[in-house]
Amino acid sequence: MPPDPPRAGELERIRRLTAHLPPGRGVIVGPGDDAAIVRPEDGADLAITTDAFLEARHFRREWCREAPGLARLATAVGRRLAAANLSDLAAMAAAPRWAVLSVGARAESEEWLEEVERALAAKLAESGAALVGGNLARTDGPEWYSLTLVGSVVRGRAWARAGARAGDLIAVTGAPGRAAAFGKRAPEYWADPDAAGPLHALGESWCDPASRVNVAAALAALGAVTAAIDLSDGLHGNLAQLCEAGGVGAEIDAASFGEDALIAGSGPLEEVRYGPSDDYELLITVDAARRAACADAARRAGAPLTFAGRITDRAGDLTLRRADGTRAALPGRGYDHFAAP
Amino acid sequence: MPPDPPRAGELERIRRLTAHLPPGRGVIVGPGDDAAIVRPEDGADLAITTDAFLEARHFRREWCREAPGLARLATAVGRRLAAANLSDLAAMAAAPRWAVLSVGARAESEEWLEEVERALAAKLAESGAALVGGNLARTDGPEWYSLTLVGSVVRGRAWARAGARAGDLIAVTGAPGRAAAFGKRAPEYWADPDAAGPLHALGESWCDPASRVNVAAALAALGAVTAAIDLSDGLHGNLAQLCEAGGVGAEIDAASFGEDALIAGSGPLEEVRYGPSDDYELLITVDAARRAACADAARRAGAPLTFAGRITDRAGDLTLRRADGTRAALPGRGYDHFAAP
Repeated sequence: MPPDPPRAGELERIRRLTAHLPPGRGVIVGPGDDAAIVRPEDGADLAITTDAFLEARHFRREWCREAPGLARLATAVGRRLAAANLSDLAAMAAAPRWAVLSVGARAESEEWLEEVERALAAKLAESGAALVGGNLARTDGPEWYSLTLVGSVVRGRAWARAGARAGDLIAVTGAPGRAAAFGKRAPEYWADPDAAGPLHALGESWCDPASRVNVAAALAALGAVTAAIDLSDGLHGNLAQLCEAGGVGAEIDAASFGEDALIAGSGPLEEVRYGPSDDYELLITVDAARRAACADAARRAGAPLTFAGRITDRAGDLTLRRADGTRAALPGRGYDHFAAP
Repeated sequence: MPPDPPRAGELERIRRLTAHLPPGRGVIVGPGDDAAIVRPEDGADLAITTDAFLEARHFRREWCREAPGLARLATAVGRRLAAANLSDLAAMAAAPRWAVLSVGARAESEEWLEEVERALAAKLAESGAALVGGNLARTDGPEWYSLTLVGSVVRGRAWARAGARAGDLIAVTGAPGRAAAFGKRAPEYWADPDAAGPLHALGESWCDPASRVNVAAALAALGAVTAAIDLSDGLHGNLAQLCEAGGVGAEIDAASFGEDALIAGSGPLEEVRYGPSDDYELLITVDAARRAACADAARRAGAPLTFAGRITDRAGDLTLRRADGTRAALPGRGYDHFAAP
């Protein structure tokens, strides 16, 4: 057997990781110095978020047995990690600007990491953000990728989790539960990612979640949003957090979402739709009088927006109103990294 | 045996981790929303850096056999991680402001992590920065802690690695090599951290590296610094990077540092002093005509500053001039996470 190709050292790896990065808006000094230097707009506030993906927790390499599949999984990991952070900023009505990536990588995973990082930078660029620096450390355990994203928000106008009032409407972008549905069927998808059918579409949406940055900007311009949170733990979990922050309750109309052919086959519909799921969608509450304007803004921004229920004054109470008029406690709970198994 | 106490869930852990955090300057929304919101000064640039600590790479829990030692090690890890990032900003002449912490933690390490995070927040606060958010994920492998730190720098006045000119003086804060010296003797130190003597002093400096933020600010005000880098890979490694960025060479005077009783006993002096070592000190080049002013500024800021040599026009050439007048290649090389073992 030929010997393994020589492995690149740390500085060479960093050079390869950063060589292709496009210049970003407001970037004075990009990768390669002790810190990046960027120039914020005068009069704006900054939003700062961080989110990480861990091997064996957010994805599993053993889903793919074929090398081409591995490259696609790396791309998906990069794009999803970008989406997770973009979604946090969208939920604050902030425009993404600059990001740094911190990585724990195994020595042998040079190509995989380059693929992850290239996909991540591309996804960020599509939403107006640039990767301006990072840190590369070696691990012998599971790999991890941690992104910090900084955005710009109109001074004093960031959305908060708190602020929902009884009577406000609850609106959700996209189709919550699809990430959870995919999680249950991931090995089946990766065995043949190109097979047609609902599982293929479900896989595509998992591999590249839509960014809700544009619709957030459009809705922010209306001034009708009273509270916002991103859907990264699941509809039940994140709605509970929004209600706790605002001291309110919520009632969800089961019929509002309709059927979802992509979720069917992945478990009981309500469990999947309301339970733990990292969809990176937006959950907002809006002034009921502004419903039509919000719907119109979302349509113009190209984002599906479902009015899914309303805020109540029953603090902490989360109710599901089924199509037959009966009421039940909203199924599901949020994702918890440290929940008892 | 009594059963283990019930383990807290993710949200409860985050609450405990963030409950004690002091409010920070310019912090509009702290931990607990999708992103933190902060307010930069108009007219300033931002410096953004990220650095991570990994279990089994930057520290080893098995250094401590006693529980009290473990708490002290957690404090040291928190303070060193803060120092690693503070040092990056000092090397850009930036004032630290806001940080977010991303963590991969094992389920059972709740108290350890709280100790790390408390120590990190305290160290940041001493340099004017606040922890404003983070992310907590569970790992079953080695733990890791990744910090991103954002600072403020006078517009267009950030220091760069490039910029050193032949004839500039090379100056270094503190005593490079001490982190490397400690690394070789860590188990000996942790077996009895309170024993008197040089090893105790060496351990104290490892556990809590000085922040060079203040001296950087004082030197920046003089306008005499032509290039800067932080010493996180080792004097040889970081000097090589500074010289490469500037297309210059360097000559170090071995006698300038004098003896160092804390390094003695940890290996050949030159290897330890110039080789891989994460000291979080500053390496700067200054206009030779401003030497006295720089020395005075450092003294007022309370930082030891050693004039250690000069920049040459021999690009890439790093020379050591020994006390007897002989010259040799500068010993050591930089730390490389991915170097062949």
